[in-house]
Amino acid sequence: MTKEFFSVTPVETVFEYISEFPRTAVEKIGLLEAGGRVLAEKIVSDIDLPGFDRSTMDGYAVRASDTFGASESNPAYLDICGSIAMGQKPEVAVSSGKAARIATGGMLPEGADAVMMIEHTSEIDDATIEVYRRVAPGTHVIQKDEDIRKNTLLLSPGRRLSPQETGIIAAMGKPVVRVYQKPVIGIISTGDEVVPADSIPETGCIRDINTYTLSAAIHLCGGTPRSYGIVGDRFGALLGTAQKAVAESDMVIISGGSSVGTRDLTIEVIEALSGARIRVHGLPVRPGKPTILAEAGGKSIWGLPGHVASAMVIFEVFVKPCIRHIGGEQAPSGKHYRIPATLSRNLSSAQGRIDYVRVRIVEKDGACFAEPILGPSGLIRTMLEADGLIKIGMNSEGLEKGANVLVMPFQS
Amino acid sequence: MTKEFFSVTPVETVFEYISEFPRTAVEKIGLLEAGGRVLAEKIVSDIDLPGFDRSTMDGYAVRASDTFGASESNPAYLDICGSIAMGQKPEVAVSSGKAARIATGGMLPEGADAVMMIEHTSEIDDATIEVYRRVAPGTHVIQKDEDIRKNTLLLSPGRRLSPQETGIIAAMGKPVVRVYQKPVIGIISTGDEVVPADSIPETGCIRDINTYTLSAAIHLCGGTPRSYGIVGDRFGALLGTAQKAVAESDMVIISGGSSVGTRDLTIEVIEALSGARIRVHGLPVRPGKPTILAEAGGKSIWGLPGHVASAMVIFEVFVKPCIRHIGGEQAPSGKHYRIPATLSRNLSSAQGRIDYVRVRIVEKDGACFAEPILGPSGLIRTMLEADGLIKIGMNSEGLEKGANVLVMPFQS
Repeated sequence: MTKEFFSVTPVETVFEYISEFPRTAVEKIGLLEAGGRVLAEKIVSDIDLPGFDRSTMDGYAVRASDTFGASESNPAYLDICGSIAMGQKPEVAVSSGKAARIATGGMLPEGADAVMMIEHTSEIDDATIEVYRRVAPGTHVIQKDEDIRKNTLLLSPGRRLSPQETGIIAAMGKPVVRVYQKPVIGIISTGDEVVPADSIPETGCIRDINTYTLSAAIHLCGGTPRSYGIVGDRFGALLGTAQKAVAESDMVIISGGSSVGTRDLTIEVIEALSGARIRVHGLPVRPGKPTILAEAGGKSIWGLPGHVASAMVIFEVFVKPCIRHIGGEQAPSGKHYRIPATLSRNLSSAQGRIDYVRVRIVEKDGACFAEPILGPSGLIRTMLEADGLIKIGMNSEGLEKGANVLVMPFQS
Repeated sequence: MTKEFFSVTPVETVFEYISEFPRTAVEKIGLLEAGGRVLAEKIVSDIDLPGFDRSTMDGYAVRASDTFGASESNPAYLDICGSIAMGQKPEVAVSSGKAARIATGGMLPEGADAVMMIEHTSEIDDATIEVYRRVAPGTHVIQKDEDIRKNTLLLSPGRRLSPQETGIIAAMGKPVVRVYQKPVIGIISTGDEVVPADSIPETGCIRDINTYTLSAAIHLCGGTPRSYGIVGDRFGALLGTAQKAVAESDMVIISGGSSVGTRDLTIEVIEALSGARIRVHGLPVRPGKPTILAEAGGKSIWGLPGHVASAMVIFEVFVKPCIRHIGGEQAPSGKHYRIPATLSRNLSSAQGRIDYVRVRIVEKDGACFAEPILGPSGLIRTMLEADGLIKIGMNSEGLEKGANVLVMPFQS
C-alpha cells in the first residue's frame, strides 16, 4: 500500500471526453413504444394541421357579419340550413342569414367564418335559432394550418420523446419511427468484501448494493443494465469479466474499489484491456475523487468508487450524461430540471474542489428548502434520505444558510 | 343536439372517488427489475449495517490515545503489526503503540478504535510509521450499527422504489421482492373524424393522437398501456370495445368525444356497462370540463375530452394519480416535485373553476420563470411547447405577472 496522489482532470475536460464517445446504432420501432426513446430522424409535417377550418366548440357555423349587433335583448335570427357530420366534408354551405349545426372538431362549411357557441343561442323551432351574442370572423375556429403548417420541421434527431412528442409524430402519419438503440451498460461489482444480496455476510463482508442501485438508475436514464456479478480482487478474474463486458456492452461500469488496493487493481485491469486509454484518473470532486474513465474501442469504461453514496453521486453527475450522450440524446434535450431552493444551514467546502452535497427537498408554504444530509459517503442511509444534489463550486469555501441553490433531483 | 348543463363534481370529491378504487394484485419480482415498481411489503433490516466497525479511509487502524499530541513537528511513532485483509475477520489485534494497515471498507481489528489516514503518515521502514496528526476515538470508522440497526423498519408498502431503495433492499438480503402488478390501462380512441396514424386523412378527418400521448404518459407513471384502437361514434361498436377493455384491463380510458354528440354516446355506453356507476360527469376545471369518471366492478373508467391538450391536462391532474393509486402507490410517495417559478405575465381566470395553464419553464440566472403557453386546447402545438401546468384556484380571478407559482412538470 503506498500513498497516492491523483492528478485530477478538470470537470469540463471530462464532459469533453464524454461528448466524444460514439452514439448507439439506430433502429425502427412502433410509435406506441417510442415514449422516452431518443429520436434519430427529423420529423417534418407532411400536412397542414388540422388540415381544415375546424370548430373548437359545439354550436352553429355562421357568417360573423350576421351576428353583428346581436345581444340578449336584441337577438339575431338565423335559419338552420343543415348539420355538419363529423369526419366528413360538409354538404351544406352557409349563406347570409343561415346557420349550420356543428360539433367540436367539425369542419366549417363553405360560407361560414365563425362558430357561435350553443350556450349563446336558443332553438325557436327546428328551422330557426335566436343568437344572443356577436362573434368576430374566426371565433371558435382553428384555421386549417393554424396548428402546424405543412413542411415545418417539428422535431430534430436527439430528442428524448415526451408523450406529447409521440402524439405529434402520430399526427404526422408515422406509426413507425427511427430511434437510437438503448445503450447496454455492463455492471461489474468488485471487492473481496462484497457478497451476493442473497447470502448472509460473514464478519467483515458486506452485501452487494451497487449492482442494484446502478441497474435501477441506468433504467431511469434510458439504458439497459446488464449485471456481470461480483468479482473478487484478482487481476485475472476481473480482466476476464471486464473483457467480456466490454465486448457485449456499449459502456462498462466497474464499481467498488474504494480502497487503494482495489483501485490499483481496477486501473491495472482497465489498462490491460485491448486498446484501452485512460482518460480520467481522479476528479476534483467530493465525494468520488478516485473516479476512473477510460476508452477502449470507442466504448467508455467507468471505475466508480465502492461507497454507495460516492458511486451514486458520480453516476448522477458524470455517468448519466454519458449514457444519455451515447444513447443519442442531444443536450439540451428532455427536461432535466433543477429545482430552486433555499439552503437550510451553513455548508463548508474547500477551494479547488467541487462538492456535491446530498440534500432533502422540503416544500413549506409554497417555498422549497434544501436540507443537507450529512454523514460519511459509506452510509447508504444518507442516500435513502436524499432527494438530490447541490453543487458547491470550485472557488467557493462554502454556502451560507439562506443561500439560493439549484437542486439536481435524482431520477430527473 | 341540445344544450348541456353539467352538474360538476368538486375536485376533492374526485380524489376521494379515486382513493376508493382497489389496488392491483401483488407479484414477486427480481430486485434487479424492481426499480420504479411499487413495494408491496415491509422491508425490515435483518442485520446491523455495516455489521462490523468499518474503516472509511485507507490508512492505519490505531488506538486513538497513541496519537494524542502527535503533529508534523512532533510525530508519533507506531509499530506496524500487520495488514487487514478485505472481507475477512482481522487476524491481528492492535495494542498500544501498534498500527495495522487497513483499506477503506476493511474491518477494524480488536484493540483499534480509529483510523489514521495514510496521507497523515509516513512509513519509516517496513515495521514503523510516523504519524503527524492526532485522531479522536471513532475517527474514520463507521460503527457496526451506525448505518442501519437490526430490526429497523426501512421501507413501507406503497413506496415507488428509487435506485437507492433497491440498494437498501439488496443490503437487507432480499434479491426477490413483492411489488404491486403494473396496472393495465386500456385506451379507446373515439370519434368519426379520427383516423389511424398511418393513413392519409380525408378532408374533415384527423389522425389519432391521443392513443400515442396517453400510451407514453401511462408508461411514465408506471402503467402498462393497451390500445383498443379507434372506434367510430356508434353505440354498439363502442359498447363492445368498452366491454372487452374493461374485462381485460384495470382501468379504461375512452378519449375523444369532445363534441356533445360523442360525449353523449360515451356516457350512454359507460352507463350500459354491467354494474357501472357514473361518479363524475363534468369537472369545475378548464380545460377538461366534460370529463367522465365511472366505476364498474371495481375498475375505473375515464371519459377524457378529445382535444389533445385537454386530455393531457386531465390525465396529469386526475388520471395519473388514479393510476398511481391502483398501482399501489401511497401518497405521498416517490418524489413528484413542483418547481417554484415566477409567472412571466398576467393570467385571467374565473371564480368558480380551477384553471390549469400550460407553461414553459425557463431558467434564467438561477431563477425559474413560468411562461404561459396560450392557445385553444385543440392545438397540439401548445402541448409541445409546454413543460408543465400551473393551477389558478377556484376563488381566484387570475394571477399577476411576477406571482410565485408552483409548476407541476409533465413526466414527474
